[in-house]
Order: sequence, then C-alpha cells, then structure tokens
Amino acid sequence: MHSIPKQEYLERISKFQANIKAAGLDACLVHGNESDFANVRYLTEYWPTFEAGGVFVPAEGKPVLLIGPESENYAKGRSVIPDICKMVEYRESAEPQYPGIAVAHYPDVVKLAMGNRPLKKLGLAGYSVMTLPVYMSLQKELPGTELIKADETLLSLRFVKSENELDCMRRAFQISELAVEAILNEAKPGMTEFQVIGIAQREIYKHGGEYEGHALYCFCGNRTNNAICRPTSNKLIENEVIQLNIGARVGGYSSSVGLPFSFGKLPERKQRLVEFGLQAHIKTMELMEAGKPAASVVKQYEEWVKQQGFGQYMLYGPCHAIGIMEVEQPWMESVSTYNLVENMTFQVDTFFADKDFGLRWENGVAVKKGGVEKLSSKYMKLVQL
Amino acid sequence: MHSIPKQEYLERISKFQANIKAAGLDACLVHGNESDFANVRYLTEYWPTFEAGGVFVPAEGKPVLLIGPESENYAKGRSVIPDICKMVEYRESAEPQYPGIAVAHYPDVVKLAMGNRPLKKLGLAGYSVMTLPVYMSLQKELPGTELIKADETLLSLRFVKSENELDCMRRAFQISELAVEAILNEAKPGMTEFQVIGIAQREIYKHGGEYEGHALYCFCGNRTNNAICRPTSNKLIENEVIQLNIGARVGGYSSSVGLPFSFGKLPERKQRLVEFGLQAHIKTMELMEAGKPAASVVKQYEEWVKQQGFGQYMLYGPCHAIGIMEVEQPWMESVSTYNLVENMTFQVDTFFADKDFGLRWENGVAVKKGGVEKLSSKYMKLVQL
Repeated sequence: MHSIPKQEYLERISKFQANIKAAGLDACLVHGNESDFANVRYLTEYWPTFEAGGVFVPAEGKPVLLIGPESENYAKGRSVIPDICKMVEYRESAEPQYPGIAVAHYPDVVKLAMGNRPLKKLGLAGYSVMTLPVYMSLQKELPGTELIKADETLLSLRFVKSENELDCMRRAFQISELAVEAILNEAKPGMTEFQVIGIAQREIYKHGGEYEGHALYCFCGNRTNNAICRPTSNKLIENEVIQLNIGARVGGYSSSVGLPFSFGKLPERKQRLVEFGLQAHIKTMELMEAGKPAASVVKQYEEWVKQQGFGQYMLYGPCHAIGIMEVEQPWMESVSTYNLVENMTFQVDTFFADKDFGLRWENGVAVKKGGVEKLSSKYMKLVQL
Repeated sequence: MHSIPKQEYLERISKFQANIKAAGLDACLVHGNESDFANVRYLTEYWPTFEAGGVFVPAEGKPVLLIGPESENYAKGRSVIPDICKMVEYRESAEPQYPGIAVAHYPDVVKLAMGNRPLKKLGLAGYSVMTLPVYMSLQKELPGTELIKADETLLSLRFVKSENELDCMRRAFQISELAVEAILNEAKPGMTEFQVIGIAQREIYKHGGEYEGHALYCFCGNRTNNAICRPTSNKLIENEVIQLNIGARVGGYSSSVGLPFSFGKLPERKQRLVEFGLQAHIKTMELMEAGKPAASVVKQYEEWVKQQGFGQYMLYGPCHAIGIMEVEQPWMESVSTYNLVENMTFQVDTFFADKDFGLRWENGVAVKKGGVEKLSSKYMKLVQL
C-alpha cells in the first residue's frame, strides 16, 4: 500500500499550528474543492467530491474538518480528524436547502476548535480557490475578526516531500509509464483522442491508481500548439505530432508523463523541434541540484535555449512543483526567490510551440544533493511507431 | 455527433443579455472552474482545465471570455466568443507569475465589452464557486460598481433543455448503461473498487464519451451508507451490497446510472431495502409530470415512503436537476417553489441508508406532458450475479 500514515497527518497539523502561531495568527481556515482539494487532503486525508471542504486549525486547540451536508459518513470514514462540522458554505454549487438537516456556523466551529480563546486574526489558506459564500459568512458571523491571506503558513510545508510522499509519487509515475506503454502498444491511426484516453484510464485503475493525476489529454496536429487542452473526437493521423499527457494518482499524489509521438516519420522541421525539446528537457534536469537558486536554473535554461537558436519557440518555463496537485507551488520562474531543497519534487515541463504545432516533454524529478532522482524516465526518447 | 451548434450558444447569450437587462443590471460576470465549469461552458463551449474561467456579459454590447494565461490557443480553438482576455485572476491555484506575459484587468474587459456605457450594477453568476482573487480585483479595479449575486439571470436558462441538449443527454445515459453492462459482465469477487472504475472509464471513452459525468464511484459493504463517496482499494465481496454510480459526459452533458448489485444472495433485511428502494425510485417517476409543483412530488413521495414503513431509512431526495453538472439547480425539495416544466431534466436519485449499509438507485428523466421520458432504465432491476 502506498499511502500516508495517520501519524504523518498529525505531524503536519502540529507543524501547521506552529506556523500559524509564528505568523501571529490565532487560527487558519483552509479551503479546497473537488478539483483543487490539496490543502484539505494534506491535513486530513479527506478528499471532497461533489461538495467543497475546509479545515479550521487554531494556533492552540484542535482542528475541525468542515464538510457539506451530504458527506458526513464519507468524511467520518476518511478523515484523520475526529471533529467534523456540516456547513452549508461547503454544499454543492446546486445549492440545495436540505430542510431538516442541522448545520453548524463559524462561531460553533471556533468554539469547538479553540474554546474561549480569542479569535482576532484568522489566516486564509487556499485563498485562490476560496469562495464567496465562505468569505461572506466569515465576515457576517465573525465580525470582530481580521481576515488575512496566509497561504504560506500551509504551502511551505508541502514543498519538501517525506519518504512516504516520495513513495506514493514514485508509484504514481510508474503507473503513468504503464499507461503510456499501453497506449503506444494499442494506438492506431484513425483512433480518436478520446479512445486513447480510455486506454490510459483503464491502465491507471488496473494498476491501483485511485484517480487521474490531472485531466488527461491526447491531441494531434495543429492543436498541439495549445499549452493546455482537452481531448476531442478528432482522429489520430500519420506523420503528425501526437501529444500525450498521462498522469495517475496514488495515495493522494499526482504524476504526469508527457511525450510527443508519431505514426511514421515527422516532417524534418517538426522532428527537429521535437528532438531539441528532448535535449532541453534533459538539460533542465542537469541544471538542478539541492542548494541552487531556482531562478538561476531558469535563467541558465533560457539562455541555453536562446543560444541554441530556439528562443522563439519557448513560452513557459521549465518546471513547476508537483505533489497532490499536478501543478503546485512553487513554480520555477526567473522571478523566483527560493533555493532548491533536497526532496522538493518538480515536474520538468518542457513546452515548445510553433504556429502550427507544438510538443511537451514531461517527467518528474526529486531534488537531491548534486542532482536529481528521476521519478519517470522511460519515455525520454523519440517514439515513431 | 452529439453536440450543441454554435447558433444555440449565441441564442443563449442573447437570452442571458435580456435577463440581465430585465434584472436592472448593466452586466454579469460568470464564473467557473475545472470541476464546476457549467456556466462558462453553457455560454461559450469553452471548458476550463487546470485554470479557471469567466464570461463578462453586458446587457448591451458583446460578451468577453476570461481565461488564465496558459489557455489562449486552447480557448481560441474552442470558444464561440471571439473576444478573449487573459487574466491573472483565472490562473492556476499554484499562482505562477508569468513574467513577460501581458494580462488584462477588469476595466479593460468592461471597455471591450461595453465601450463607454456606464457599469453601475454588476451581477455575479456562479457565485457559489466565485473566488476571492476575482472578487478582490473587482472591488479594487471597479470601485464605483455595485456587485450583486445574480445567479438566477443565468441558471433559469439552463432549467429547460433544448432538443440538442436532450440528444447529448440521451447519448450520455446510453454510454453510462454500456459502462454498467461491461462492469456487470466483468466484475468478480476480489476485484478492487478502483478496478471496477477502470472498466467504466474504458467504456466511457470507447463509446465517444468526452469525460466522466461526475467523479465515478463503486463501493461495497458498510460504506454503502455513505451518501457521497470515492472508490478505494477495498475488494468486492460476496453476499454484500455493491453500489455503482457511473456517468458518462457527452457534448458537455452529464449522466449517471446508479444501482446496487451483489454476488450471490443478499441477507433478507438488505434485499428488502434494496427492493423497496427500487419501488420508491419507480414511484418518484410516476409522480412527475409537466405542470406539477415540485414540492408536491416531494411531499407525496415522502408520505408514501413513510406509509410503507421505510421513513427512517430516507435521508435525501428524491430528485435533483441534471444537465452540464450531474447535480444542478433546481433541486426538488419540500421547500421548492417552482412547477415542473416540459423538458426539464432530473436525476431521480433514490437513496436509503441503514446503520451498516445503504443503496442508491439513479436514473435520468425528462419531464413531459402527463409523465416522464426515461433517459435510462435498463438497470432498474435487481441484479444478483
């Protein structure tokens, strides 16, 4: 079993409480939803579906899981936190009224979590996905409390991965590679992009994945210049770039393996950019090691790409962190201000696009002293079927 | 092809603009995210992934699609609206800074959408999922503008389905039935819940589904008393209730087929509740017809369940609307104030739970004069393998 033991969740909560205290806050309210559930799952193992979820964590006292009115039994079976409140702020977006079902309000939660200790400063974590119903209720029900964006109190804990987290991620990347292998064995010209995704989904669950690590995609032809995309009913064709981005989720942790492939030869112009992309992908990995400023990796990478004469095809830069979310903080950008630390995990994400096509190489790495551990590497090669 | 033609999207926008005007608003800002994208897709066909999305629709003028910084080519290829703005408020929750990429601000959007017309009252639709970064930017960048929750201006348009919408939904329900059929053919004791979901995913994409209609689940034993759940690595066992909720998505539209099944006989107490659940499921469908107050369906249903002696097992119910979201407005509750209208589509969702097990029958219907059209019905029967 690849999973995070209960004790590790409890240690996360203790560290979070220390951060809350150090930031001069009395408590933090954490938010997550069905597609962006990372903060809630990180602290509780609870994984919202249909409804949203929250965690109220006091600097001193006990954490409380906040759920929608339909999730009580599900949450009790899953959460490492025993105190759970049903609240209308976390209901489905269809906004049922649930006549006859008793719900809690924020003052009830505060009382349960921290007794009579004063709540003057409340940090908000998961601010970028926190919704208006949550915010309006906080303003109305906790009128003397200052609300302060405080993502860093929680997100900083998620940057460096534990051995258990790395174990989940290694398995997730292995399953992603198995799914890619099945696709390359079975894909044929004329198959739709949807059907390719069906092969991947089948393999992910067959090998013990709990869900996709991100919304999977396969696409072909001109649309490969899309940085983000969804698959369609378009058919795979020969002698064209076909892009795969396939990720399994294990024990809460995401992965993704991305590669361009083709049926038959690519036109030389396209093949050259595909091959250069792979070189750039490997180059990024060579530039990474514990202790190095993230911004310097980006600057060296960008300079190298330009020197090689491919600067005009470069859109984004070369890495983002990966963990519970396939894309999570911190990104690696020229404006980044942190240094790489051992066991930070990054998705090396090498995207080049021309007007009429593009390609993306993606593999995961864990930062180590003097280099990186590759979490996936089987498909760092040119595949022409 | 089961899809919504461009003309129908443009008609939706015209109707929405009429509603905005009738509500005394100057414009509406619509919000959606990866898991709750319905309002954005309803108006534009654009389907956010990784990033969030918005639509700014003036009472007079032209609509503008609002996307994150990475989705430009993807959005251009998908949106029926030609005017698109990249905005940092819709970026991924990892909050990349994208040095060097130009983004728009709300005053730019207002100018593009409505020229120099005044914006005094701005409605907010998709309020339940609208995020703090969007709200804070609106407050800061449009200081003279009143922000007003205005979901009804848009949601009311989604209640009654067109022939094109019904066509997508019929196909989605057919595919869900094919996926259930494959599961019942292949499932065996000892298989994990995850593996069952893998079978469903394979079939959904094989038959042209574009995605799951909701987060699919299969679970077994005590946990079937969860109203909402996710599958796990638990194994299917004999003589126990195994619950399936399987939904395909076609042309944007969701579906779900839910049934309890077992390997071998169930204990009599469990079989009795499973069978009663099916009777109650059919009863709900018999109570529905165009013109009837929604609340009276619920009251008649609840009264009937109590008369039959099963009131203590009833938690929710018996219906919620289905469309782009598997659960959408309006719910059918005892406090509902609307009447059923022809071509409203509902998910008949019959959930009964005891302390140590539960079961859910789910099938879709379209309201018609004098009754309902069943969108799925193949698995309204007791299945013991």
